[in-house]
Amino acid sequence: MILGIGSGSTIVYAVTRLAERVRKEGLKIVCIPTSFQAQQLIVTNNLTLGSLDTTPELDCAIDGADEVDDKLTLIKGGGGCQTQEKIVASCARKLVIVADSTKNSTSLGQQYKKIPVEVIPLAYNPILQRITQKFGGTAELRMGKMKAGPIVSDNGNFIVDWFFPTGIEDWKTVNERIKMMPGVVETGLFVDMAQIAYFGGPDGSLSVKLAS
Amino acid sequence: MILGIGSGSTIVYAVTRLAERVRKEGLKIVCIPTSFQAQQLIVTNNLTLGSLDTTPELDCAIDGADEVDDKLTLIKGGGGCQTQEKIVASCARKLVIVADSTKNSTSLGQQYKKIPVEVIPLAYNPILQRITQKFGGTAELRMGKMKAGPIVSDNGNFIVDWFFPTGIEDWKTVNERIKMMPGVVETGLFVDMAQIAYFGGPDGSLSVKLAS
Repeated sequence: MILGIGSGSTIVYAVTRLAERVRKEGLKIVCIPTSFQAQQLIVTNNLTLGSLDTTPELDCAIDGADEVDDKLTLIKGGGGCQTQEKIVASCARKLVIVADSTKNSTSLGQQYKKIPVEVIPLAYNPILQRITQKFGGTAELRMGKMKAGPIVSDNGNFIVDWFFPTGIEDWKTVNERIKMMPGVVETGLFVDMAQIAYFGGPDGSLSVKLAS
Repeated sequence: MILGIGSGSTIVYAVTRLAERVRKEGLKIVCIPTSFQAQQLIVTNNLTLGSLDTTPELDCAIDGADEVDDKLTLIKGGGGCQTQEKIVASCARKLVIVADSTKNSTSLGQQYKKIPVEVIPLAYNPILQRITQKFGGTAELRMGKMKAGPIVSDNGNFIVDWFFPTGIEDWKTVNERIKMMPGVVETGLFVDMAQIAYFGGPDGSLSVKLAS
């Protein structure tokens, strides 16, 4: 099985459990990382590391999300890894989301307020302006806490966080219009990509949402 | 005046002439480069170098093209700079193309056979496959001549050259579908961007095409 391994805090639990099953049950799994963090997770858990160069078709990708609506539209990119996550997800026959129950919303914006957009560094300023002019809200360049100036993605780019206004429903069109802007590498909007999402509650409960 | 300065061999002549006029006529022009090559051209010609950080709105951009059809749809990226070129052009009120007369076609593919696509390095293999599966033709990773392995763009990415089949007419849709693929940073298709193209002939003649 060829499996995409997502990024973020929840994925750590999934990979730990996966490694346990590989060890105990002898599962044959090649893991494709969605970030440098995921690659480190795969390596430190003694899982088999693969790449899209040798295996461009994945059976499944498991990833987290910052928010999931009832159509399984996702906001991702709080960790700045949405480009590689979307590349890997687009190569997978199935995208499975695992998240804690605070990420489960009926519509986007109920809990999470921004869409992360990866941009070519020299284009960040016109893109900040264009996104807010077209769609409203505010936007800012994501700044580092452990580095002076903006954070730099695993691909060497910047992240613009767009704090979107309420009332947007057609996320597919918004995603397309932002991605088409020259200088935009990828958005954190995942539309029609996930098939199923599992949410864990603080009491150990599990809820499931399926794509309609 | 805020002016975008393109990349390629023809632009060298335009910048030389521009520098002459700035010197003689005292024109006040800030130049925004579309590549490292353009930045060097601006600096070595003693023109004023600006950036999209300080001037995100340009009066005009001058650039070359690999092929120009009768609707002023362009193929660009033979020099691997199409991403920054498109970013700068998208910030300009007007895009002016200067090229030699061999770049003047009625439809794309008459003289130039490929569309360059800038991609995130780890995604090149699935993108090679996806473009040819969707649209036909062949595609290859652009390899270096003065560097082992693939060339790397000014943005640290790879270039996939798509040798497209004959018969494509709706370049707007093709451009949108390729750019929407996760891992694609920018295509070398410029649709509805240029307003005018000037072509110089070997005999010193000049022909002009306007966007319809």
